[in-house]
Amino acid sequence: MNIEEMTIEEIAEQINSLFDNKKYSDIKSILAEINPADGAIIFEEVSYERQILLFRLLPKEEAAEVFVELDYDTQETLIHGFSDTELREVLDELYLDDTVDIIEEMPATIVKRILKNTDSQTRASINTLLKYPEDSAGSIMTPEFVDLKKNNTVEDAFKRIRRTGPDKETIYTCYVTDESRHLIGVITVKDLLLHEYDDKIEDLMETNIIYIYTHDDKETAVQLFDKYDFLALPVVDMEQRLVGIITVDDALDVLQEENTEDIHKMNAILHNEKPYLKMSVGEIWKSRILWLLILMVSATFTSIILNAFEAKLSALIILTSFIPMLTGTSGNSGGQASAVIIRALSLGEIGFKDIFKVIWKEFRVGVLCGLTLAAVNFVKVWVLDRWLLGMEGITVGVDLVISLTLVIEIIFAKMVGCIFPILAKKLKLDPAVISSPIITTVMDALSLLVYFGFATAILHI
Amino acid sequence: MNIEEMTIEEIAEQINSLFDNKKYSDIKSILAEINPADGAIIFEEVSYERQILLFRLLPKEEAAEVFVELDYDTQETLIHGFSDTELREVLDELYLDDTVDIIEEMPATIVKRILKNTDSQTRASINTLLKYPEDSAGSIMTPEFVDLKKNNTVEDAFKRIRRTGPDKETIYTCYVTDESRHLIGVITVKDLLLHEYDDKIEDLMETNIIYIYTHDDKETAVQLFDKYDFLALPVVDMEQRLVGIITVDDALDVLQEENTEDIHKMNAILHNEKPYLKMSVGEIWKSRILWLLILMVSATFTSIILNAFEAKLSALIILTSFIPMLTGTSGNSGGQASAVIIRALSLGEIGFKDIFKVIWKEFRVGVLCGLTLAAVNFVKVWVLDRWLLGMEGITVGVDLVISLTLVIEIIFAKMVGCIFPILAKKLKLDPAVISSPIITTVMDALSLLVYFGFATAILHI
Repeated sequence: MNIEEMTIEEIAEQINSLFDNKKYSDIKSILAEINPADGAIIFEEVSYERQILLFRLLPKEEAAEVFVELDYDTQETLIHGFSDTELREVLDELYLDDTVDIIEEMPATIVKRILKNTDSQTRASINTLLKYPEDSAGSIMTPEFVDLKKNNTVEDAFKRIRRTGPDKETIYTCYVTDESRHLIGVITVKDLLLHEYDDKIEDLMETNIIYIYTHDDKETAVQLFDKYDFLALPVVDMEQRLVGIITVDDALDVLQEENTEDIHKMNAILHNEKPYLKMSVGEIWKSRILWLLILMVSATFTSIILNAFEAKLSALIILTSFIPMLTGTSGNSGGQASAVIIRALSLGEIGFKDIFKVIWKEFRVGVLCGLTLAAVNFVKVWVLDRWLLGMEGITVGVDLVISLTLVIEIIFAKMVGCIFPILAKKLKLDPAVISSPIITTVMDALSLLVYFGFATAILHI
Repeated sequence: MNIEEMTIEEIAEQINSLFDNKKYSDIKSILAEINPADGAIIFEEVSYERQILLFRLLPKEEAAEVFVELDYDTQETLIHGFSDTELREVLDELYLDDTVDIIEEMPATIVKRILKNTDSQTRASINTLLKYPEDSAGSIMTPEFVDLKKNNTVEDAFKRIRRTGPDKETIYTCYVTDESRHLIGVITVKDLLLHEYDDKIEDLMETNIIYIYTHDDKETAVQLFDKYDFLALPVVDMEQRLVGIITVDDALDVLQEENTEDIHKMNAILHNEKPYLKMSVGEIWKSRILWLLILMVSATFTSIILNAFEAKLSALIILTSFIPMLTGTSGNSGGQASAVIIRALSLGEIGFKDIFKVIWKEFRVGVLCGLTLAAVNFVKVWVLDRWLLGMEGITVGVDLVISLTLVIEIIFAKMVGCIFPILAKKLKLDPAVISSPIITTVMDALSLLVYFGFATAILHI
């Protein structure tokens, strides 16, 4: 049995069959060899009754690391099965920010048990962390960092790292604070290693420090990681006192989460943090139905417009045949613009100050795209639709109306697609709420007005 | 002048006015205080002629760090202005992966100058790195890592880090190789710091190593970072020899890039790496026109369907009024499903093996959403459209046709939206190419068929 060659699914299957045969020591030796993140996957593949057994077979020093990778349901099952001693052992090994994440998801009875099994100092820190708003930098930080004093030497620093390091989430960036806990410097272990033992921290530390406030948005923290390539970012309170750090792995998680949220919003979905397969049908329905309803009812405008032009449509029914193509194309054009602008806003590539630059750019892109599509369409309608498919009622006038509509609606679509998200941002809304379905709904109505305008003017109907 | 209180834009303005007054030493002292990433922003705010001057005013040890943060255009301008000595100084300080990134973007004359100014060993490494395919793990790795031997002691390790560390992109994870450069262990500086000086590396190192092959997709590397919270990931060749590492900051960049690419693809845009404001109107047009054309021509199907039912539409023109609402709603429903599924696929939450689970889930969500929207719509058409807006020709039959179409088209839309991306993935295509515009175009045609089917059956037209 060579587990290095096996996929996690195969290992899980193997473990299940070892359970069937009660070969617990074999399970133990498999578990000793695998990474905590993989260990967590195995937990999801065994039955509830086996989970607590499996947990007890984990190497002591890895148990907490696996625990933190489990989903909340499994964590809850395990905590139910834990003795108080086991619970305390796990809690002792967890980093505080992870404990807080778990507490936020657990029912009250379990939270009570967790708090009962932590010492009073930890309990106080947990309570402080729980108070930060959900999307704040404070909510993702950990108060466990290595702090140094400016008159420490490099040797002192290493001693302190050796003593306190095992409990810290990262030791590679150390923070220098004064007697009132103000952040006055930062020094990396790399710098420490490359200097002499008796050098003073004060002379080596970086004093031009990038930091973030506890109440800042966690998205801002991610942008700082992206820009400055940090391994950890210090978090200070309103009085500039260092209260915690955010580590790069947590920033990566936030980034993934924010991107998922953006993609969902851009498609008119209310975001839910659960992974897809864990969501119930009712939860998925809830995340999707609101916008579908709003957009469906908003489409009343298109019904009104079509109804108003009913007589003209009856007179020249061929015009109906091109409505989905026209509304589709304007929706697609607007959706392209809004997607690009929303993303550029969220990457910080553009801001409100660039609004006129963006509008001017999109206007020209709209003219170019409009002319290209109109030219292709003019030929296509004439050759494919009229000649090859034999659609009746297509005249040069009709073809012209369709093509001119394309030019104008695409320019409009690019304008709407770029202006809406920038304005949303200015109004402190998330630009991603300007989903392409919203753009499509607006453009459906606008395109029809343009279409009937040209039809009236050119075809005199 | 307290630059800590100023925004980067204000600092850039300040520097420009110091240039006007030729106060170069003041510029020098400002530059000494700011972070390389911010320094790079200032370069974009000064004129071309001043950029080379500005570069020469940077602190020597920071010049390369700023250089690497600049955009390619500015780098090109600077290299043109560099003397060979200056160029060599910058190149000496750059990490190899950054040099390669720059070379990939520069015109041939500059590449030649760069290669002329590097030593033969570096030149050989550059040439090797240039050979990895664009999206491979090899293309984002750096060959500069700290390597140890298994019979080294902790003390040996620290000596080696002190000696070779300054040139390495990260020193926090060290890699243990055997005499044929096979990767046999990994050890972190944290572990080294927490053990005794005479402990053997062999006894401390982690031997269950997660690594990636040079030819693996760089997206796979990002997924490993996301899952295992690494600071660096080793990259091996086909013979399992360690050839480089990928650091977490590069993984973060890839992640942002991949997410942008996904969002663009999902909105029918061909991805271009340049930031929005740097792209010319022609480049933006090129990235958008292809899909607009394809989708516009594909909409011929809807024209054919509408044309075929022309006689029926003429007989009951009110049916036309609801076409944009019906096609819009099915497009939105399908777009929601595809966005969720594409994202879940790219996060690795679901795979091809889950296809039936997903279909069954989306089917039930479709039924629920369809029934909700149909019920609301039935009342809305009757009360708002017929009664309040006075649209003529709305009968119970017509209302029923519209509402039934909603139920069926939404179920279809959820099916199409979930099946297409999973199949695309199975066919080794990027699921994100199944953009919501594609779903919309398919659903436009399907919805019309359903609509006219019900109209024929119920209204006997």
